[in-house]
Amino acid sequence: MWKPDRQSKKPIYEQIADHLEQRISYGEFPPGSLLPSERKLAEQLGVNRSTVILAFAELRSMGIIESRAGSGTRVSRTKWGAMPKHTPNWRRYAEGGSFLPNPTFLRRIREALTQQPSLIDFASGELSPDLAPTEEIADLMSQHRYTSYLGYDNPQGYVPLREALVTYLSQYRGIQTTEASILITSGSQQSLYLITQCLLSPGDAVAIEDPSYCYSLPMFQSAGLRLFRLPVDQEGLCPEDIRTLYKKHRIKMVFMNPNFQNPTGTVFSMERRKQLFAVASELGLPIVEDDPFGLTAYEGEVPMPLKSMDSNGSILYIGSFSKIAASGLRIGWMVAPHSIVERLADARQQMDFGLSVIPQQVAAQFIRSDYFRPHLERLQIQLQFKRDLLVEALQTELPDLVSFTAPHGGLHLWCKLAHPVHDGRLLEEAIKKGIVFVPGSVYGSDSSYVRFTYARAKAGEIRDGVAKFAEALRELVRE
Amino acid sequence: MWKPDRQSKKPIYEQIADHLEQRISYGEFPPGSLLPSERKLAEQLGVNRSTVILAFAELRSMGIIESRAGSGTRVSRTKWGAMPKHTPNWRRYAEGGSFLPNPTFLRRIREALTQQPSLIDFASGELSPDLAPTEEIADLMSQHRYTSYLGYDNPQGYVPLREALVTYLSQYRGIQTTEASILITSGSQQSLYLITQCLLSPGDAVAIEDPSYCYSLPMFQSAGLRLFRLPVDQEGLCPEDIRTLYKKHRIKMVFMNPNFQNPTGTVFSMERRKQLFAVASELGLPIVEDDPFGLTAYEGEVPMPLKSMDSNGSILYIGSFSKIAASGLRIGWMVAPHSIVERLADARQQMDFGLSVIPQQVAAQFIRSDYFRPHLERLQIQLQFKRDLLVEALQTELPDLVSFTAPHGGLHLWCKLAHPVHDGRLLEEAIKKGIVFVPGSVYGSDSSYVRFTYARAKAGEIRDGVAKFAEALRELVRE
Repeated sequence: MWKPDRQSKKPIYEQIADHLEQRISYGEFPPGSLLPSERKLAEQLGVNRSTVILAFAELRSMGIIESRAGSGTRVSRTKWGAMPKHTPNWRRYAEGGSFLPNPTFLRRIREALTQQPSLIDFASGELSPDLAPTEEIADLMSQHRYTSYLGYDNPQGYVPLREALVTYLSQYRGIQTTEASILITSGSQQSLYLITQCLLSPGDAVAIEDPSYCYSLPMFQSAGLRLFRLPVDQEGLCPEDIRTLYKKHRIKMVFMNPNFQNPTGTVFSMERRKQLFAVASELGLPIVEDDPFGLTAYEGEVPMPLKSMDSNGSILYIGSFSKIAASGLRIGWMVAPHSIVERLADARQQMDFGLSVIPQQVAAQFIRSDYFRPHLERLQIQLQFKRDLLVEALQTELPDLVSFTAPHGGLHLWCKLAHPVHDGRLLEEAIKKGIVFVPGSVYGSDSSYVRFTYARAKAGEIRDGVAKFAEALRELVRE
Repeated sequence: MWKPDRQSKKPIYEQIADHLEQRISYGEFPPGSLLPSERKLAEQLGVNRSTVILAFAELRSMGIIESRAGSGTRVSRTKWGAMPKHTPNWRRYAEGGSFLPNPTFLRRIREALTQQPSLIDFASGELSPDLAPTEEIADLMSQHRYTSYLGYDNPQGYVPLREALVTYLSQYRGIQTTEASILITSGSQQSLYLITQCLLSPGDAVAIEDPSYCYSLPMFQSAGLRLFRLPVDQEGLCPEDIRTLYKKHRIKMVFMNPNFQNPTGTVFSMERRKQLFAVASELGLPIVEDDPFGLTAYEGEVPMPLKSMDSNGSILYIGSFSKIAASGLRIGWMVAPHSIVERLADARQQMDFGLSVIPQQVAAQFIRSDYFRPHLERLQIQLQFKRDLLVEALQTELPDLVSFTAPHGGLHLWCKLAHPVHDGRLLEEAIKKGIVFVPGSVYGSDSSYVRFTYARAKAGEIRDGVAKFAEALRELVRE
């Protein structure tokens, strides 16, 4: 990212004006388009807002931009409009299209994290850099010479990785399968995207857990699906609710996250699992099982996936390395009947022509290596340590204002607020204090919940982060 | 892939029966689903068809499968149906969904290449392994220790790669831009997918070249777009046709491949480029420019992209490494106004959460390295050499039956057949003789064209491959 040169003799506001003029001339901001606000630019460039105001004045005097009260600063149509007759109305194209944008809160959180990288991050659902096996992967990569064929990969994914996963799934997840039933994807997100786009049609009804991270995914709405809720209690969803929804709305699929459910942290009980299989086989209904957190279990037994008990063939199983190793590898997988795998692999060719071979090779080496099991053990210990820090901090800072059940695995703690407050104002207040979290409404809950991710922040930040959150919350509650 | 053990004392047909029984028990072939045909399985496993017939008989006697004349062999519902009440009807799910499958010919070609890897491949639009910079990339990877952060990447792509591309685009493609205007994608396919899904809505009219590789992409139909044709002659498309289509159908976007167009190999003339800019700016119409082949030019000047002349901001520019370095890296890019890049980056988060960081690091290292320019020079020489081999072989083997214009760059030669023949029969006949090509109808042409890719086959195979094609063609023409 460009930053002004503080050693230069040229005044900083002039450097900024020149830089913006160049970006406008490259077509980055076409005639008529909105520039970032003065405040935002000042943050991005690390300068005072007054410096940006001077730079804008400079550009205005050259006729390059124009500002109107209340509608921000735009690239001039008259100046740039002299040469171009009609630039495409890019903004209209950007706002068109059938694919819905991300929820506002998630975009706001991402924006805040980009502008203030020092924010304490209780929002991003991923591991902190020190929990990822960075050195292990660097070691494995340095021990190997990557001279294998760099052409288009097999549409189902790199065969040696699928073979390594057959062993992994049997050893760690109790799933017996063959490499022909596995599709390698770019993480669980792509698995879900392929299912919603290719196996379902607009207007189809599906059931999802309530609350559920699925609500945070506009892909369900973009695919035109009708969503119905399955409330989650301490034992997970109630399988009888599935029967009711099926009778009423002819739901075609159920999406669930049985182990350390996101966001509640619940493990689906054995009793309910048995009921679920009975209902699913009675109705011939497919269940999509997302299992990203199973292996993070740090207390009690590692819970097994539904797929390991699936004698009826009802389960489409989704897994990934994102939450147990490194989200930046972008490696996930699906286990499904061959006809489904073939169909989704064919469709994926149209979307991105498959994954790069290199991270697939790295992932295969990693799960086969002696690094993998010790990494998992270390991860479980560290996650428990961070969860304990968060629980302790919440009990100390907010004993009267929050309640929660401490999870036994996963990355998230789901926290009920004793007094309802305005989601958006709480988030803005928290950002001002220096932290981000995800408001419960993103997961379909009413506004008296928040999701804290304890995996992403540094251990040393957790206590301080909760104190900042407590300040923000107390201010709103006091009002 | 599993193969029978020829050293084992157990008869091969029994090994196959056991193997199939295991795959069925894992749910890969659910009750009622179709097994691969005897012929196909025999090919896959490298055994005689009679061995597969014996294996099927074994499974039938156990009640695991059932065969009915004319409808193939299916997993039994009665045997496996005793335990499961209703397995989801996976086949119906696989056949449902709004996303269209790949064209039959392309799936047939892929299937043939999987079953007979020894086929001479004039179909796959990619470089042969010896043209890819495999050793260079292995060198670069071994010189670097990959310890950078393995978390989720910036939604627009890895910043150092975008910075490297700013220099690359300026030096090699005459495009001035900044990293804020660049979106890294998983190749041109993903760039096109994002544009068709996110900037256009079902029912929108768009114009594409005729013939065009766009016809081979069901993504256009899957997005519900109405396609209109712009016929291509020796100078490319006629910009006046765009005006006509706009008046008649309100087309919202034009897709084109100005340099060494796929499949015709045409370079869009300078005269027409000027006309295009006049029409585009008059109508305020965006042009999507796909530029995968520009740098392959081995005769004449390297043609510059439209984007390098785009003072009006009409062009969405798409580039990739797939055709000039390695398709297996899965690295492409788009240059567009910032509002478009932001929108597409946001939508892509929903589809796959972005690319793996590792191949992006490798790509950035490669274009910045001293390996890049010599690689391009070597590639150009080798492509010209292979094109010459193909041209010579066609002139020798089929002087009376084909006509074509030799391209000056790209990977493909577009070849007109003197006598119309049945597309599908010619392809099947060619597969029998040991080669594959792509029938012209895949690109929207009538059936008297074929596309030969000369980049993928080994140099030593080209003459032989054309001889085999000539045999197949002469047999059909003779009928």
